[in-house]
Amino acid sequence: MKRFNTSPISGMQELLPPQQAVFNQIKNQIETIYHLHGFQSIETPIIDRTSILLAKAGGDTEKQIYKVIKTEESADDADQALRFDHTVPLARYVIEHENDLAFPFKVTQIGRNFRGERAQKGRFREFYQCDIDILGRDTLPIAYDAEVITTLYEALQIFNLPEMRIRISNRKILTGLLAALNLQDFSADIFSIIDHAEKVPPETTREHLENLNLSPDIVDKITTFMQISGSREEVINQLQNLGIENEIFATGLSELSKVLEILVQNGLGEIAIADMLIVRGLDYYTGTVFETFLTNHRHIGSICGGGRYDNLTGFFSDHKFPGVGGSIGLTRLFYVLNENNLLNSQIINPVDYAIIPMSENEYKAAYNLTSKLRGQGKTADIILTDKKLGDKLNYAGKIAKYAIVVGEDEATSGNFTVKDLQTREQFDLAL
Amino acid sequence: MKRFNTSPISGMQELLPPQQAVFNQIKNQIETIYHLHGFQSIETPIIDRTSILLAKAGGDTEKQIYKVIKTEESADDADQALRFDHTVPLARYVIEHENDLAFPFKVTQIGRNFRGERAQKGRFREFYQCDIDILGRDTLPIAYDAEVITTLYEALQIFNLPEMRIRISNRKILTGLLAALNLQDFSADIFSIIDHAEKVPPETTREHLENLNLSPDIVDKITTFMQISGSREEVINQLQNLGIENEIFATGLSELSKVLEILVQNGLGEIAIADMLIVRGLDYYTGTVFETFLTNHRHIGSICGGGRYDNLTGFFSDHKFPGVGGSIGLTRLFYVLNENNLLNSQIINPVDYAIIPMSENEYKAAYNLTSKLRGQGKTADIILTDKKLGDKLNYAGKIAKYAIVVGEDEATSGNFTVKDLQTREQFDLAL
Repeated sequence: MKRFNTSPISGMQELLPPQQAVFNQIKNQIETIYHLHGFQSIETPIIDRTSILLAKAGGDTEKQIYKVIKTEESADDADQALRFDHTVPLARYVIEHENDLAFPFKVTQIGRNFRGERAQKGRFREFYQCDIDILGRDTLPIAYDAEVITTLYEALQIFNLPEMRIRISNRKILTGLLAALNLQDFSADIFSIIDHAEKVPPETTREHLENLNLSPDIVDKITTFMQISGSREEVINQLQNLGIENEIFATGLSELSKVLEILVQNGLGEIAIADMLIVRGLDYYTGTVFETFLTNHRHIGSICGGGRYDNLTGFFSDHKFPGVGGSIGLTRLFYVLNENNLLNSQIINPVDYAIIPMSENEYKAAYNLTSKLRGQGKTADIILTDKKLGDKLNYAGKIAKYAIVVGEDEATSGNFTVKDLQTREQFDLAL
Repeated sequence: MKRFNTSPISGMQELLPPQQAVFNQIKNQIETIYHLHGFQSIETPIIDRTSILLAKAGGDTEKQIYKVIKTEESADDADQALRFDHTVPLARYVIEHENDLAFPFKVTQIGRNFRGERAQKGRFREFYQCDIDILGRDTLPIAYDAEVITTLYEALQIFNLPEMRIRISNRKILTGLLAALNLQDFSADIFSIIDHAEKVPPETTREHLENLNLSPDIVDKITTFMQISGSREEVINQLQNLGIENEIFATGLSELSKVLEILVQNGLGEIAIADMLIVRGLDYYTGTVFETFLTNHRHIGSICGGGRYDNLTGFFSDHKFPGVGGSIGLTRLFYVLNENNLLNSQIINPVDYAIIPMSENEYKAAYNLTSKLRGQGKTADIILTDKKLGDKLNYAGKIAKYAIVVGEDEATSGNFTVKDLQTREQFDLAL
């Protein structure tokens, strides 16, 4: 009888060992690809100052952040909370360690973040994010935006996913368009309407725009703009045809064009498309923004996104560190791929060999064998319970791929038979 | 000018990329050795129910635990806090997933735990622990205690540490001794006095015992007992010579003897010694207890410890899951080894190659080269800033081991020269 509720708190992922092994393998593969691309690992504390974490937050973040109660012993410290993403602590880290870092600083952070969202199937309150970011001192060439997108694309390859599209825009284009149309005052509203446009019917989006008291002509212009998507040439053409004369618009167009040019050169010509519906919710983005979708599984939502943030550190310091970054939300992605039978990794027993001594007389020979296998890089467990052989083999079948029984004969001869616990085949062990 | 305090909260470790690379490498090596020994990885949530975490705590733990304020959106949940070790959440995990696990369950957990201790040099409030545990259903043979100690010893080998000793005892021996002397009522006091005996002069320990109003004869018996340490034969002999007739004492003696016998067989004869001063502070230990020290660096304190806990899950369920486990406190160990110049890992730039195109004309050739190097498993960064060559080489020297400059000649010929950024030597690149 249970005396306590022993389930994890709702919204927390807790995996069994075989699932955890696959999850960790994916996490390590992503990290390896980030490293190959020259990103260096750091870890920021999970607990940080609330004043830092909420400096540029607001809205949902402030409602969802986990505040921490200072303990009796740590009463001297500032108000504390759990980080809700990797980007804000990174901004603090860069300011704090500015003199010890080389810029552009290419950095990866893989770890758990925390948001106390309302419990909901497939949403997590504690979740792994696999981030990469590049921060420059004073300036950061636009080519780095393409480097971030290329690296994330390479990392997503490990999932063997079906057809995907990386949809890219640049917030300067919409900002410039609204300035040219004298709609700066409606900027936040229009960004939000476009951000939600794919979740409602087109009539609703039109209605939302009309509710801002915009003229039908202006509403037409915005809805036309929103529909622009396609290859670099197509989109650049269509945007130029809008006849907008505005410097920010022109800068955004040129940046988008440059990013797409490099992506085509990097072999992402079929994958990366320009799409004016992409704006991203977070306030700190200032230029390039992107989201990644599986073409035939749109209900899964974006599996990877990010963008350029030129002013984030401006809240903490006068020094400028323009940055660009992106993230794979691994906990959620692992969950949805599993739910949709898209997780191609085989979920198998994590241990290679279970070594089963028949009795205590064979412990020494069994230990020797186990040690040899481990020396060859094989994971090996020696079973030391005093159960019957059948029970031990049953146990082995739950944790390992292969079993080796060590009886008197095997201990004497040093010849062992390996049993494949899945196929039931047997073969001689070659050490 | 900084507008915020951007330092991490005191007690939180925050490393620069080269240090982080060494830390992560050590962490991965430890995990690999745990896997080789058949331990399977799991991760429990960092946030858990306070009722679970504090079920068997008390004392310091209750003062140091970080409670979490429920957010507006998660108001339905129980009281929550951050885990302070891996063992208590593991007990919950085993009860919760009992039917999906195979027992004995050999498990490793590597992650951060949280204790709001008073800030102090070398003490951390957020710290990595690398745990292994083995839990049986109903019973767990004593041989598994030796398996835990052997695995931890193998993991410690990666540090290339100077001479170490694993000091081992069994709490049943002292428990039995106290029962035989009719001192059960003083049990908690005497355990605590022995636990602290090495931190004070012998006279003080004697005084503390006398303060319990024990007869000089009894105090002699206890201080004699405390001094017993040495090889298996020596200690077993000395303990038998005490002439204690008590079943618990005898069981403890036999378990200790068995554990040491297997450790000798596993090649730890010179390393593992029996030592009656080892009792460990935590209440949940019931049998084997051990601590590891560096012989010539005793001031560092224990670098690895653990023990047998037969009743921990008893607080959550009627089902019995006796366990044995141990832990390497990696954050603290990394810090003290570094402080004492005992960290043998070389702290070097994490990136293999920095690729430096002379101008935008060489971007394509430079991208191709970078991509080839990455394909060969080399970490490679392409430098896309428009700085002077000297500045780019300077930057390369801070992040990478080698630099390759791609000018017009190199782009045309496809022949590249590698510069070793440490030795300044140059050589041809062989792809």
